[in-house]
Amino acid sequence: MSRIAPAEPWAVREIGLPSDDAGRRQAESLFALANGHIGLRGNLDEPQPCGMPGTFLNSLYEERELTYPEAGYAFPERTETIVNAPNGKPITLTVGGEPFDLETGELRRHERVLDLRAGTLTREAVWVSPGGVEVRLRSVRVVSFRRPSVAAIRYTVDADAELRVDSDLMVDEAQPPPRDDPRASAVIADAFVPVFHDRDLLVHRTRRSGITVAVAVTHTGHDGEIVTGPDRLRWTATAHGSLSFDKILAYGWDGLDQRDQALADRDAAARAGFDELLAEQRAYLDDFWAYADIELDGDDEVQQGTRFGLFHVLQAGAQAGPHPIPAKGLTGNGYDGHTLWDNETYVLPVLTYTHPACVGQALRWRHSTLDQARSRARELRLDGAAFPWRTISGPECSGYWPAGTAALHINADIADAVLRYHAATGDDTFMREAGDELIAETARLWRKVAYLDEEGVAHIAGVTGPDEYTALMDDNVYTNLMARRNLRAAALDEVSGHIADRLAVPYSPRREVHEQSAGFTRLDEWKSFDDESYPLMLHHHYLNLYRKQVVKQADLVLAMVMCGDEFTRDEKRRNFEYYEARTVRDSSLSAPMQAVLAAELDHLSLAHAYLSEAALLDLRAGGESGGDGLHIAACAGAWIAVVMGFGGLRDSGGRLALSPKIPPGLTRLRFRLRWRGAALCVTVTPGVVTYQADGPISFRHYDSETSLRAGEEATFKLDPVDDLPAPPTPRPPTPPG
Amino acid sequence: MSRIAPAEPWAVREIGLPSDDAGRRQAESLFALANGHIGLRGNLDEPQPCGMPGTFLNSLYEERELTYPEAGYAFPERTETIVNAPNGKPITLTVGGEPFDLETGELRRHERVLDLRAGTLTREAVWVSPGGVEVRLRSVRVVSFRRPSVAAIRYTVDADAELRVDSDLMVDEAQPPPRDDPRASAVIADAFVPVFHDRDLLVHRTRRSGITVAVAVTHTGHDGEIVTGPDRLRWTATAHGSLSFDKILAYGWDGLDQRDQALADRDAAARAGFDELLAEQRAYLDDFWAYADIELDGDDEVQQGTRFGLFHVLQAGAQAGPHPIPAKGLTGNGYDGHTLWDNETYVLPVLTYTHPACVGQALRWRHSTLDQARSRARELRLDGAAFPWRTISGPECSGYWPAGTAALHINADIADAVLRYHAATGDDTFMREAGDELIAETARLWRKVAYLDEEGVAHIAGVTGPDEYTALMDDNVYTNLMARRNLRAAALDEVSGHIADRLAVPYSPRREVHEQSAGFTRLDEWKSFDDESYPLMLHHHYLNLYRKQVVKQADLVLAMVMCGDEFTRDEKRRNFEYYEARTVRDSSLSAPMQAVLAAELDHLSLAHAYLSEAALLDLRAGGESGGDGLHIAACAGAWIAVVMGFGGLRDSGGRLALSPKIPPGLTRLRFRLRWRGAALCVTVTPGVVTYQADGPISFRHYDSETSLRAGEEATFKLDPVDDLPAPPTPRPPTPPG
Repeated sequence: MSRIAPAEPWAVREIGLPSDDAGRRQAESLFALANGHIGLRGNLDEPQPCGMPGTFLNSLYEERELTYPEAGYAFPERTETIVNAPNGKPITLTVGGEPFDLETGELRRHERVLDLRAGTLTREAVWVSPGGVEVRLRSVRVVSFRRPSVAAIRYTVDADAELRVDSDLMVDEAQPPPRDDPRASAVIADAFVPVFHDRDLLVHRTRRSGITVAVAVTHTGHDGEIVTGPDRLRWTATAHGSLSFDKILAYGWDGLDQRDQALADRDAAARAGFDELLAEQRAYLDDFWAYADIELDGDDEVQQGTRFGLFHVLQAGAQAGPHPIPAKGLTGNGYDGHTLWDNETYVLPVLTYTHPACVGQALRWRHSTLDQARSRARELRLDGAAFPWRTISGPECSGYWPAGTAALHINADIADAVLRYHAATGDDTFMREAGDELIAETARLWRKVAYLDEEGVAHIAGVTGPDEYTALMDDNVYTNLMARRNLRAAALDEVSGHIADRLAVPYSPRREVHEQSAGFTRLDEWKSFDDESYPLMLHHHYLNLYRKQVVKQADLVLAMVMCGDEFTRDEKRRNFEYYEARTVRDSSLSAPMQAVLAAELDHLSLAHAYLSEAALLDLRAGGESGGDGLHIAACAGAWIAVVMGFGGLRDSGGRLALSPKIPPGLTRLRFRLRWRGAALCVTVTPGVVTYQADGPISFRHYDSETSLRAGEEATFKLDPVDDLPAPPTPRPPTPPG
Repeated sequence: MSRIAPAEPWAVREIGLPSDDAGRRQAESLFALANGHIGLRGNLDEPQPCGMPGTFLNSLYEERELTYPEAGYAFPERTETIVNAPNGKPITLTVGGEPFDLETGELRRHERVLDLRAGTLTREAVWVSPGGVEVRLRSVRVVSFRRPSVAAIRYTVDADAELRVDSDLMVDEAQPPPRDDPRASAVIADAFVPVFHDRDLLVHRTRRSGITVAVAVTHTGHDGEIVTGPDRLRWTATAHGSLSFDKILAYGWDGLDQRDQALADRDAAARAGFDELLAEQRAYLDDFWAYADIELDGDDEVQQGTRFGLFHVLQAGAQAGPHPIPAKGLTGNGYDGHTLWDNETYVLPVLTYTHPACVGQALRWRHSTLDQARSRARELRLDGAAFPWRTISGPECSGYWPAGTAALHINADIADAVLRYHAATGDDTFMREAGDELIAETARLWRKVAYLDEEGVAHIAGVTGPDEYTALMDDNVYTNLMARRNLRAAALDEVSGHIADRLAVPYSPRREVHEQSAGFTRLDEWKSFDDESYPLMLHHHYLNLYRKQVVKQADLVLAMVMCGDEFTRDEKRRNFEYYEARTVRDSSLSAPMQAVLAAELDHLSLAHAYLSEAALLDLRAGGESGGDGLHIAACAGAWIAVVMGFGGLRDSGGRLALSPKIPPGLTRLRFRLRWRGAALCVTVTPGVVTYQADGPISFRHYDSETSLRAGEEATFKLDPVDDLPAPPTPRPPTPPG
C-alpha cells in the first residue's frame, strides 16, 4: 500500500507503491509531468505494474465515428480522441539474470517525489530480488518547460550483480479496457502506422487523422547497443555493480518537418545535458512562483494542495499554444482529451493573473477554430459563431446535445475570457488580431438566439446552463447575464444593445430568490439527499434529475460570482442559502465558485472548506475519474477560492478590485497577481492587509481607490468579520485539514 | 413507370411496374399481405427487381447493442429489431432456357390488384422474352386470416416453350443498406443459424435472441423435384406450354414445438386446398366489412383510401395476439418493427369499434410485459409501471430519451385504451385478468411523478408530449389530462384523487389559449414556414426546434379530442386556430386528430382535407418512409377522421355519443360501429341522420339520449352547418380528391 506523505510545502511524496489498479492510475495522474505541449503520465520506469500508460502530445488525436441509436440532424458524426503517443519512458532492468519486478522479491523502500520547485519526478527504490540481490534504483524525470518538445530521464542503479538495462521507445502499447463512465475516454487501439525508423528515431502516422509524429531519442553516460524496428527502438546496456545513464527524448508532430524538429530538439537538449535541463527547469519555475505563489499559514494540507494545483495548471497551459488546454491537461485521456468551457471559465482566469503569456496563446487557439464555429452556427441556423462544447481541433465532438450543444454559454465564456485577458494585460495586438473578432462573432450568436416577447422582455429559451442536472431550460440566469456582457462588449448595433438591456433574469417573488432558470424554483424538490449514492448521474436517469430542484454544480452561484454587480448583497445571501441546500457538488467545478461566494458573504469557514475540497480533490480524495487525468479546472479552483474568495478579486468592467478577508483557520494568507505588467503581492493577516507593488498599479481595496508605484507598499486595517455559520448543504464539504 | 389506377371502391390496382427503388419499396408496402401473425411484403414472385425483401413474423426479432457517444444511467443498452424471416415467396421462371427477367425483353402488360374483399394480391403479366417467346403469368397470393400461420400462392404460366420453375424457401437474403433516416430500421444481416432441414421444412434459430423458426412448404398441382440444404429448399418443376401449381407455406416460431406446428398447419391448409383458403378469406372479410365498412359517396379516392386503411389495420391486428401490433404492422421493418403509443391511441380505438376481439388480445400483450414495465419504473425511481416508448417483447428500446422515455403519456394512453375497450365491450373478464392491473399500475406512476406545489397545484414536469418538436416541458396539457383520467379510473387512494383534481392545465390569459405545455406560448415564433424543407427534423437541430413555437403533430389538439369535456367550445375554437397556425404535420399522426377537431368546430372542408391526407398518405402520396412499411396509425386515421370527425363519436366516461355532420364534398356518409355486442349503422346525408341497430344499444345523438332495440331504426333531422373557412396553416392540407 502506498500513501501520500503528510503535507510538505513544496513537494508531493508517495511512500510505498499503490496496490491496486485504481491507486496506480491515481498516482500516475498525480505524478504526471507536462509542459502543455507534451505530457508523461507518472508510470513507473519499468512497464509493469501500470494502471494506464500515457504519453500525450497536445492535439495528437485520432478520429472516431460517433453513432447514435437514434440520430438527429447535425448530431456530430465524428469525434476526436487523444491517443497514447510513442512511449519513451520504459526502462526494463535485469539484475543477475533476474527481472527487476516489484511484484516479486522484497520492496524495502519505494518513494516518489514530485518537486514543485524543481519540476521533477524523482523515484528511489530499494529492492531485494527473489535471488537475494539488493538493488538500489534512482530515477529523475523532467519534462522541460523551456524546451517544449523535450523530456529526459536520469536512471541510476546499483547492485552487486550483472546489470542489464533495456530502454525502449515503443508504439501502441496495450491499453486497459475503457471504464464504464461517461467521463472516461474511448480506447483507440492500434492508432499508428509506421512510417520510418532508424537508430535515432521512430516516425509514425495516425491512421485516420493522418498526423505524423516523430520521436527522437538518445542515451548518454553509458555505452549501449541499439536494435530498432517499425514499432520499437531499444537501447541495451550492461554493467556490473553500477549503471547510470541519461535518456533524452524529443517529439515532433505539429511542425512541417516532424523528423528534423525532433532530431534538432533532441540534439540541442543532449548538448545542454541533463543537469542543464534541470537548471533551466528550476529557473522557469522560480520565475513562475515569484508571480503565482500562494502562502497559507495554518493549513499545511491546503497549502500543499494549492501549490500542487497551480503547478498542474502551469503544466497544462505553459506551452499549450497554439493548441488547446484539455480539461485533463496532458495527465490522462479523460474526456477523450477534449477542451471544454472550464478552460475559459476556470483555467484561463488563473493563468491571466499568474502567467498571462499562455492565455493569449490559448485564446488565439480558439480564434484559429473560428471558421469551424461559424459553420456550426450556420448548421444550427444561428448567426456568428457557435463554439463546440467539446473538441480538440475545433469541431463539435459532444455526443449528448442536451448537455453539449445546448450549453450555448460557452460562447459567452470565451468572450469573457477575452475581456479579462485584455483588461489584465492591455494586449491590444491580441484584440486586433483575434479578441475583437471572438467577441463580435459570439455576440452575433446571442443576437440571433435571443428574442423579444410582446412585453419587450428578451429571452434565451431551451438552453442548458452550467448545472447539468437541469437541461433545456429558458432564461438561465448565468447564460443570460454572460450573454448580456458579451453583447455589450461587442456593441454590434442598437438591436443587440436593446436585447442586452432587456434579457430576462427570472426571479421568484414567492421564494424571494432568483431562479437558476425560468420555473426552476417551482420544480419538485429532491427529497432524499441522505440516502443517495453520488454522483447522482451514475444512479439516476436524467428524467428524474432534470425535473427536480437538484443542482450538480454552481450555476446561479456562478452567475453571482462572475456577474456580481447584477445582484444586491441581500439577493446574493438569499440565493446562496437557497441553492446551497440544493447543490450536490457532483462536479469538481462546483466547490471553487461556492467558496468564492461563501467568502464574499462572510461564510468564511465554509469557504475554507470548499477551498480545501478543491485543493485536495485529486491529491487526497482520489476517486476513479482522477485516474483518467487530473481535474485541471479544480486545480485552478484552489487559486480561485483563495484569490477570488478570500482575496475578493473581481475584474468586471476591466477594473481590478480586491476585498481581502482571512478565515479563522489561517494566520496569514499571501497571494500575488499580475496586472498590466506590474505584480502585486497581497498579504492578509487578521486585522491587516498589505499590498506591495513592483510596478505602477491601480486597484480598489474594498471601496478605496488605491494606486501604488514600483516598490511601494500600502497597508490597510481590516475590520474583523463574523464568520457566519454555513447554510445546510446536501453533502457536507470536505473538512479542511 | 407504374401508376395506381383511378380509385376503385374495393381494390387497389397498379398498372405497370415501378421503375425505381423508392417506387418498388412503396408498392411492396401497399401490396403487403398480412394477418397480424405473419406478413409478406408485396415483392414480385421472382426475386428481382426488389426494393426490400420482407417476410415478417410477429415478434420474430433479433437483439442488437445500443451504443451512445455519451451514455447515461438507464439508457437502454439493448434493442430489438424485426428480422426478415425465411422467405417462401420466390418463384423463378425460365422459358425456353431464357430467364423470366422483367428488366429484359418487352413487358406488354403488368397489373397487380389488392382485392380488399377477397383479401388477395393478384398479379398478371404478359411479357415477351428477348428471344421472342410470349409469356402469360398469373399469380394469386393470400395470407390467411383464418389460419394465422399460413400463406399460399397460386402460380400459373403459359408460353409456347419449355417452362421451368424454381420455387424457393430461402434464408438471410441480401438486404438493401439502411436509409439515412432515424425512422428507418437497422439492418440485421446473417440473422439465422440453421438447425434442421429436410424435404418439408427448414428450421433456423436467431443468433442472439434465440428464437426458433420453422417453415414448412408444399407444392401441389404439379410434380416437381426437391433439393434442400441448410438455407434453401428448392422445388423445381418443368412443363411445356403451361404450368400451374399452388405453393402452401406455414410458419411456426412462437409455440413449443415449432416444427410440428408448421407441418400440421401446412398439412391442414394443403388438405383444404387453395380454393378453400380463398373462400375462407372472403368469408372472414365479409364478416369484417359488415361491421367496419365506411361508405363515402362523393369522394371516390378517399372512399378507396379509407377502405385500404381499414384493410391494413385489420391486417396488422387481426391475429396479432399474443404479440404486439407494430407501428408498421407486418408490412415493413420501419421503426425496427417496434410498437409505439399510436397502437393504443390510433389503432386500438378503430379496432375497438370494428373488430374488438383483437383489442383484448393487444391489451393482454401489454399486460404480459407488465413486469418489465415495473422494473423500468424502479430503474427510473418511479412507482407502478413505466411502459416502453418502443418495444417488441417489452423492454424499452428507445435510444433518444427526450423523445422516448420522457414521453410518459404512453402509460395514460394504455390506460385509456383499456377503459375504451371495456366501455365498448363490457369484457369484465379482461378487466379482472389484465385491465384493472394495467390501470392501477399506470396510475401509480402518475401519483409518483406528479407533485403538489405550495399553492396546492399538481404538476408533471420535464416530460415530452405527443409533439416531438418540443421536449422536456412542464405540464403538457395532453399528458396531464390523460394522467387525470388514469388516476381517476384507478381511484387508488385520496392522494391520487387529490392530484388528479389539481393537475395544472396551463393557460395563457394574454393569448387566451391553453398552452401546449407551460410556457409554450411565450416561446419564440417559427418565422419562416414557407422557406422550409419538410419534415423539419431532417433539416433542423432539435436545439432550434425545441425552443420555438413549432408543432410537429397534434398535441393540444389531441388533448381536445381525447378529453373534450375539459374545454369549452370557445376555448376549443381559439386553441384550434392558434395551434393550426403552428402545426407542420411532420408526423402522419397529426392530420386525423386535426380532422376530428376541425369537424367538431364546423371547419368541414378542412376536416375533409385532413381526412383525405390521412386516407391517401400511403396510397397516393408515396414518400420514403412508406417504403419501410405502411403507417398503420395513419391507416386507422382515416376511420378516426370519418367516425370521430364527421360522426362525432366520443366515448369519454364510458358512454357512446355521436354528433354526425356531413361535409359539403360528400352526398352520403355511412359508417358502422360495434357497442356491447350490438352493431350500429349510421347513415348521414345532408339534413338527415339514420341509425340502424342489430341489437339493443343506447347512445347520445347530440344532446338526445337514444335507445334502439334489435332491428330498430331512428332518424333525426340534421340542421345545416355553415362550413367555416380553414384557419391559416403552415402547410396546406392535401386537397381532397
